Order: sequence, then structure tokens, then C-alpha cells
Amino acid sequence: MKLIRYGAAGKEKTGVIIDDIKYDTSAFGEDYNEAFFENDGLNRLQQFINTNKHTLTKIADGERLGSPVARPSKIVCIGLNYKDHAEETNAPLPKEPILFFKSTTALVGPNDDIIIPKNSVKTDWEVELAVVIGKKASYVEESEAMDYVAGYALHNDVSEREFQLERNGTWDKGKGCDTFAPIGPFLATADEIKDVHNLRLWLTLNGKTMQDGSTSNLIFNIAHLISYTSQFMTLLPGDIISTGTPAGVGLGFKPPLYLKPGDVVELGIDGLGKARQVLKAYAKN
Amino acid sequence: MKLIRYGAAGKEKTGVIIDDIKYDTSAFGEDYNEAFFENDGLNRLQQFINTNKHTLTKIADGERLGSPVARPSKIVCIGLNYKDHAEETNAPLPKEPILFFKSTTALVGPNDDIIIPKNSVKTDWEVELAVVIGKKASYVEESEAMDYVAGYALHNDVSEREFQLERNGTWDKGKGCDTFAPIGPFLATADEIKDVHNLRLWLTLNGKTMQDGSTSNLIFNIAHLISYTSQFMTLLPGDIISTGTPAGVGLGFKPPLYLKPGDVVELGIDGLGKARQVLKAYAKN
Repeated sequence: MKLIRYGAAGKEKTGVIIDDIKYDTSAFGEDYNEAFFENDGLNRLQQFINTNKHTLTKIADGERLGSPVARPSKIVCIGLNYKDHAEETNAPLPKEPILFFKSTTALVGPNDDIIIPKNSVKTDWEVELAVVIGKKASYVEESEAMDYVAGYALHNDVSEREFQLERNGTWDKGKGCDTFAPIGPFLATADEIKDVHNLRLWLTLNGKTMQDGSTSNLIFNIAHLISYTSQFMTLLPGDIISTGTPAGVGLGFKPPLYLKPGDVVELGIDGLGKARQVLKAYAKN
Repeated sequence: MKLIRYGAAGKEKTGVIIDDIKYDTSAFGEDYNEAFFENDGLNRLQQFINTNKHTLTKIADGERLGSPVARPSKIVCIGLNYKDHAEETNAPLPKEPILFFKSTTALVGPNDDIIIPKNSVKTDWEVELAVVIGKKASYVEESEAMDYVAGYALHNDVSEREFQLERNGTWDKGKGCDTFAPIGPFLATADEIKDVHNLRLWLTLNGKTMQDGSTSNLIFNIAHLISYTSQFMTLLPGDIISTGTPAGVGLGFKPPLYLKPGDVVELGIDGLGKARQVLKAYAKN
């Protein structure tokens, strides 16, 4: 299945994509949140669709997409998980995964504007494969870790490099600004993706290719990341692990290249669709 | 008001403490969560108590206390915010606040057991003043920041020093293990605390005083921390900022002193009550 959430921000309704057509699933009566994933929601939703497939309502073209997953308990991100990206940032290859958090208030839809924070001069992009956790995971063995995956989605791990690296502290400061986690267009359930470790992922800035990598180059694979993270904290259903970005971020250019108002970022991953984000300056509401 | 949550873990009911007696407020019909704080819950709860004070049911002695606040969207912690603690860990004084996150799955009640994680050899204690946010905070001015405080609570920012400092990454890895955020016994609303920047906070290990400090020694005060954090992310109602720990943690001893099964940690802050936690080894359920 391909799950979507659509409508006004904060009031999203649920849907699915079948044969490239978007259908409303509001009648299913549950948001795609922790309780949904925890209570076998994916299987129940599939049954609901099987039963109701001829009466589902099409979603009108032009509806805004939200994140395909409702706000999770946490967004865990993995740092420097592609060799070429570690090299471009002059960082040593990690001996074990680097973990950091993205504030869940950063979550937005795949085509929402990215707001450049107040006082930001180094807002940067990072196309990433996000893993959505399907069931509670604590001290999971690597051999069983893939059983904990609900599905996958496209994620731009937007990052403010000054906040992240020059403002005294952990990376978290530069990762969780509002709009810094556009996720979607859809959540593809795990069965939709034949080989998650062989997907092309790419990002363009104003039409020019900046990132063009493959998940085959992940330093630590998804099973390892789930098992590893679950040694340090319990992952809940609906939680997100974003698996790192390949080379080609703004920080890696000489001189570095950062986002400015009006810039257009487009990104995609094989099987997980495309997203498009326009940069806007921060303005007080 | 002094707010409590009590009963079985994950199924807590709400209550209040009036003149040292615990009363059930389940009839109010709302948990102390994001929606509660967002929708003027504190004032509405006060009115409910005023109206019903003669008919509230006492809570039986011996009931377990949970965290006085339901799971928030995030727990932001401040690192090295007491001069004497920065010195004991051989860290330079921070020029601006150090931020990190604690996984919200770490949240437990004030007298729950602390589970030493699997493969942990450096589990440590940190008595801290936790601030609970009362309304959505983004780019808040320092002069207005205290208006965003719902109240305060006692917090043990339990930390695994090897995970935090020696496992390649940000501090987050050593801060969010299950049971690493015992909070309570109660949330004291802001009006209950006359001078939040002049509170004694202390911690004992097996009856011996380890930490004995005062919030008068905070490097960055609470208004500054709220304003500062809100420059990097939006704080939601019910979110927690834990303000740092004074000297006396296990990491600061020569040689360092870490927690082992059977140890008893007791801690308290003036006006915010006391908590008592017994250390247990991890055991698979």
C-alpha cells in the first residue's frame, strides 16, 4: 500500500494511492499514527480497502499533501551514513552509527514551503530514505530488525549548518527548526519496495542535480540501524529513522552553497515518489 | 496547584495535592497533556477544583505516581548549565546553552525503578529542575519567556556516560534509555514557586549526599533557556526543558562512580518534593 495524508496542515485526512490515483480513506476512522501502527492498522486498512475499493472517493487534484505519518514520538536521524558524504564534510567514517534527533515539530508535507529560520545563513538540504517503525522495538536483533519496518518514505533532512556545527552543542540545534522535516509524498509499506538497499535517491536545486546516490552505499544498513538504535532507546510504532544522506549537500561545496528565499528543491527516491519544496524567508505570523 | 498522575504505568489517572493530601481529579476528564495545557487546562482545572473541592476523592496511600505530565512532544535538556558541574567534567564553560534531546520513551514516575541498560557500565545520576511549557513558544523574547512556563518539576536526568561520550555521536545516545527520565512527584504551577532561581536541589546515593546545589548558580537562567531554545525549534504545550545539573555526578569522581543494581537514589528540590529510585539490572521481559 501507499499511504497518504492530505488536506489542511494539522487537519489532515487519510488516503491511499492505488494505480496512481489518490483515494480518501477517512471512513476507516483512524489517523496513521502510533496507535494505528501499534494495533495492526496496516493489515486492517488493507482489509478495509479490499472491502470498499469500489466505493472509495477520489481525492481532488491539487489537495495539499501532509506527512504520510502523523507526528511520531520521535524522529531519529543517522549522521554520515554514506561514505561520499562523510568525505565531503571532512568527517572520518563513523565506526558506529551517529544518532541525533529532529524535533517532531519540524514535520511538514512533502511539497510545503521550507522556512529559512530567523538569523539563518546556512540552511542546507539532505535527501534521505526514512524508515517508519511498525512495532515497539527494544533490543532488537539485527536478524529480526526488518520485521519492525512498517514502510519507507522520502525525507529532506533540512539542516542549518551554523546552528548544527558552530553554536556549541549537539547537532540537534540545527535539525529541528519548523518545516525542516518534509516527509512524503507517501509511505510505501515494506512489501512495496523490492530491494530497499538498491534505490537511487537524488535532489536538485533550481533544476540542477546536487545529490545522486544509491542506498546501496549506506555504510550501516537498515537492519543494523534499527537494531543499533533500539539498544539505546525504545522505538515506538510510527517512529521514524532517517538513514543519512549521500554526497552533494551545500556544506560540501567549495565555497559552501546554502539555500535562499525563492530556491526550489526537488527530490526523489526510486519507488517512493518525488517532492518539491520552495524556500521562504521567515516572517512573523 | 500541584498536579499529579497516579496509577498503573501507561494508565495513569490525574490528581492534585492540596494541603499535602492527594485527591483524584479523573472527573475533570482530561489527562495533563499537550491539549490540556494548550486549551487553558490549568485555569479550567483550578475552577473545577474550586467547584468540587468538598467532593473530591482522596487517593489511597501507596498508589504509584507517574510522571505528572503525560508524554510530551519533546524533552529538551541543557548541558553543563552549572559552573561547578562543567568544571568537574573538565568541560569549558558554555558560551551559549548546549541542547540535547531525551527520548520521551524514557519518561517514568518519580519512584519507579531505574533500569540499568543492557551492556551499561556507566549509568549516572543528575538532579535537575524541569520546566514544563504552558503554551506554544517560537522565537520568544527573553523578557516574555516566563509567561510560557506552566510549572516546574523534579527530574533525574539519568545518563549513561559511555553511550553519551564514547559511542561516536551526540549525547542523545546516552540520555534516552527506558526509565532515564523519572519526573515528579508533582508539577508545581509557576505561581507555587516564589523564586525559581533560588531553590536548593540535592541528590543522595544510598543515603550519602552526592549533589547539593542551588538554582541560583544556573549559568543560563530559565527565561534565557526558553527564549534560546525557541530560536531553534517550536516548543509545544507540555514540552519539558530540563535545566542542567549541579556538581556531584558519578562522572566527576576520581575514579568515577557509577550506579549498580540495588543502589538507591533519592533527590529533591525545594518546593518540588522528593523522589526515590531503586536501580535494577536490565532483564528481558
